Formats: sequence, C-alpha cells, structure tokens
Amino acid sequence: MHEFEFVNWLRTLLDRPGGRAAVPVGIGDDMAVLRSGAETLLLGSDLTMEGIHFTFPEATPEQVGHKALGRCLSDCAAMAGVPVAVIVSVAKPKDLAPDMLKGVFLGLSQLADRFGCPIVGGDTARSTDGLMIDVCLLGKCEGNEPVLRSGAKVGDTLYVTGPLGGSILGRHLSFEPRIEQARWLVRHLPVHAMIDISDGLSSDLGHLCEASGCGAELTATALEAAISPKARTLAARTGKAPLDHALNDGEDFELLVALGVPPERVPVVPAPWRLIPIGRVTHDRDVVLGHPDGRRERLVPRGFRHF
Amino acid sequence: MHEFEFVNWLRTLLDRPGGRAAVPVGIGDDMAVLRSGAETLLLGSDLTMEGIHFTFPEATPEQVGHKALGRCLSDCAAMAGVPVAVIVSVAKPKDLAPDMLKGVFLGLSQLADRFGCPIVGGDTARSTDGLMIDVCLLGKCEGNEPVLRSGAKVGDTLYVTGPLGGSILGRHLSFEPRIEQARWLVRHLPVHAMIDISDGLSSDLGHLCEASGCGAELTATALEAAISPKARTLAARTGKAPLDHALNDGEDFELLVALGVPPERVPVVPAPWRLIPIGRVTHDRDVVLGHPDGRRERLVPRGFRHF
Repeated sequence: MHEFEFVNWLRTLLDRPGGRAAVPVGIGDDMAVLRSGAETLLLGSDLTMEGIHFTFPEATPEQVGHKALGRCLSDCAAMAGVPVAVIVSVAKPKDLAPDMLKGVFLGLSQLADRFGCPIVGGDTARSTDGLMIDVCLLGKCEGNEPVLRSGAKVGDTLYVTGPLGGSILGRHLSFEPRIEQARWLVRHLPVHAMIDISDGLSSDLGHLCEASGCGAELTATALEAAISPKARTLAARTGKAPLDHALNDGEDFELLVALGVPPERVPVVPAPWRLIPIGRVTHDRDVVLGHPDGRRERLVPRGFRHF
Repeated sequence: MHEFEFVNWLRTLLDRPGGRAAVPVGIGDDMAVLRSGAETLLLGSDLTMEGIHFTFPEATPEQVGHKALGRCLSDCAAMAGVPVAVIVSVAKPKDLAPDMLKGVFLGLSQLADRFGCPIVGGDTARSTDGLMIDVCLLGKCEGNEPVLRSGAKVGDTLYVTGPLGGSILGRHLSFEPRIEQARWLVRHLPVHAMIDISDGLSSDLGHLCEASGCGAELTATALEAAISPKARTLAARTGKAPLDHALNDGEDFELLVALGVPPERVPVVPAPWRLIPIGRVTHDRDVVLGHPDGRRERLVPRGFRHF
C-alpha cells in the first residue's frame, strides 16, 4: 500500500456529511477548505523528518525550520490563501543539543514573521529516533475563492512559477513560498487550478489532471526554459538528462498553474516573478510529453512516494 | 533543558505583536485563541508516539486513534470550546501492516464523528522508528469566551470532573473528552479557570496556579473521593499510596476547574457527570496538601515531563 492508495481509502472513509463547519474541500487538495461564519478558512499540515526531508549537518537548524514551515506556506500559496497562524509539534531526540532545537525555532519564527503568521502553539515529545517537525497551518482566503487542483479546463495553458529540478543541491532548504505571487495571479488572471510542485512535476501534474478529470500535453521545447541550472549541474553527476531532473526531482516548491488564456497570449508578471509556459490541458486523460520531432511520450509519474 | 524551560524560551521568542489575526492567547494554555473576523478560533495539537503514549499490542489500533484525537478534544474541553475540524499527520514505520494504520484512522474517525469535527487533511511520511500521530484541532467558541488557565482567583474552589490515577491500566486509551460537560459548566456556573489533567494533577494544578499568579490548598480528606478505583488497584502493585497515583500519574483527561463559588455551595451537575471538590485557590503562591492532622505538605509536581 503506497500513499495514494491509502489516501484513497481514507477519502472513502471520511467522505460523509455532517460536522460543525461546512467543508467544501477535504482531503485531496493542498489544504482543506472550511466555511465558518463569514470566513473561508484553510487548514493543512506537513511533516518534516530528519533522514527523509533533511539531514544534519548538511542542513543548518535554521534551514530545517525554514523548510518545515515553507512547505506549509507553499501549500497555502497553491490555494491562493494567506497564512494566519501556525502550530508546531516537535519530537526531539534525547541527545539533540538545545541550541539545535532553538535554531530550528529561529528558522521557523523568521519565516513566520515575514509572512505574518505567528507560531501560536504546539506540542513536544521525545523521539527515540530523529528530529520530527509537524507544522499545521491555519490560513484563510481574503477577497478571492480558494484555487483548487480540480478546476483545470481543456484548453487551459500550463505554467510554472520558476525553474525545476536539482533542488537537493540546496534550494529545498531555502525556497521562497509563492504566497504573494499566487495572490497577484488570482487578482490579474483567470487562474483555473493550482498545485505546488513538491513531489515532482510529473507527479503533481498527474494529481492536478486526475482532480480536474483531464489530461495534459507538455512541450519538451518549452520545458527547456523550466530546467533549473541546478538540474543541469546534478545531471552532469548522475548521467540522467537535465529534463528528467526537472520532471521528477520534486521539492521545487514552485506552483503549477492552469490559466484560462490562449497559448499565444503569454501573461507578463512583475519581476522577479516568473511564469514559464510548459504546455496545455487536454481532453485526453493521459499526460504526455511532446518532443520536437513530433514523438509523443507518455509521462510516468516518477516523483516522491511518501511510504 | 526540559520542556518547561524550552517553552519559556519559546514564549520569549514568539512574544511579539503583528500578524494577520489577533492572538489574545498564544503558547502556554491548552489551546491558542485567535480572533478572525467575528469568530473566536482555537488551535492546538498533540503528538501521540508509539513507545511513549501507547504500545502495540497492549493498545488496539482503534484505541490509539481514539487517544490521539481524544487528547486534543480534552484540550478543547479545557477552553470550553467546540471542535470544528481535525488535521492528522502520520509517520508510519515501513513494516506496519496496512490494517493497523486503517484501524488507527477508524478510531480517529469514530471519535471525530461523535464530536462533529471531520478529519479534513494531513500528511504522511515514513518513520524509521515507531508510529507517530500528530493531531491538530481547529475549534471555536460558540456563545462563550474561552476559559483560560490564568483566570483563577483567590477564594475560588477547585474541582475535578472525575476520579484520578491509574489510567495506565486502560483508561488512557478509552477516556471520554469533557467537551459537553465543560460547555454546561460555563453556561451554569462562574468558571474562572480550567486545565485538562494530562501531566498529572500535581503538575497541572501547578500550571494553573502559575498562570493565575496564585497558589492552592488541596485537602487530603476531599481528595479521597477523587482517587480512582484503578489508582487503588495500581497502588496495591506498586506499594505507593493511592493518593500518590491520583496526584501524579497523569493521562486522566479530566478537567481541573476553578469556580467562583464558596466552598459550602457545592454545585450539582447532571448525572453521569461529576464535580468533585478537592480544595481552594490561595493567595500564597505555594501548592500545598492539607492533611487531617493539620499537617500541611508542599506539593511537588511529579507528573509527566515531555523531554
């Protein structure tokens, strides 16, 4: 049983009416959506584990804190939400130096301050293994409806907000959550669907297409502009193609955006933000990669599997 | 550095104005309190770890799920809040049978259904050690202000909502969160302060007194009625006094309540709920235990330390 099978089982178990708040979106999007009074609230969490998401001393404690919260903020960006407050649960190995734990919280609180979402609580426990940080983020939508994975329409153009691949060389610890850019996008463009690229473009595009009941065709030529320099550096070491790294590495924490604009009308976004066109949404359910020679290759999700 | 020192450091780090929501209560109470629009929201989390909070096969998977959510609901009860939605993050050992994980979620969802707070999301990861479940609860206050730890006043009488001690014999896996009872209490009585008894009465009373800037005097005679039969069973095995177990075992998940009523006016609560008087709030900062022979013993917190 891997994660997606389990999540499907869980969605069936939990798909029932009732409860105190209306839940237009539960499990299966970047964050859950709740209506409470006049508010549209967002709720989600990300587990960040030593040995899986980071290792010491490759990462500094501050970077670990940055990543642990940044992952949640990236989910919030994908909903076009604003972060409100953060809860942090930590399981701490007995031999972890107090300064290391303080460093993690400094990294968390610096990012929390910048995004206006204070750390308001949490829990602590001993870990008999590595350091584990679970961040739960409460967000809300201000002046816009949440953007879902499921809104992509046939004919939409697909964009990413920055180059992909090779994040393991450092970016996975220092990325910038796209909160402000996502809010700009929904104010200025017909954004139909978004997802953050955490598992890898091949996987996350698959999630978006599945949720939207559509397929996609990416263009290898267009994707050239979406290959990060670090993907090329890494490819020189691994012997894989740079495009493989861009499609499958994951932890890019850029947004994949489906826009209801024709491909010839390329939107301009304020610098230093970027919007790189990579393909279009299709009626056919498959996700394919179109090569310059006309060859169409079925794209297999090769991104991160959680267990 | 144990938990309370770390939490004190953290409170200093995080004690700053700003952010998108007003946060009347942050770290240091059972849950954080947020004002968002017209809503008073509550946010908190509890980490439940294999080897610390439960072991297999002593606990069934369903009981583990019940405990993981029940701990959060008990915090929500201590604020006199109602639960709204739940986020569950799970780190799962590779060799954990799928049915075990499903059992945990069945236990979670059964309790979530009963309290009207759907599980709306979460995260999953591999654990290289035991099973770890972090539950984050969003709650709110409906028709009352949240009850804090810090509101106890000199002269208040102290009550517990049920007998204490010996929960390790089974009750820690099957307790009933006191949500409805807490709501009844705030509607019918002058509730000044509450805390849930998770670390043990000696520790949690200390937290309440510290937050309220007061002390307390418990009466050994009165406490007799607050000793659970299981505390007596356990005492027969450990050789300790049953009262020691009632004071220090923890994981009772009853509420400690400071009421602004004189000691001679004992409130009556609807059956099967209970309200057992155990002492009073004092001006002197110490927490003491008054014995029948007039001896007054300083009560040292001996409850659970988290790391």
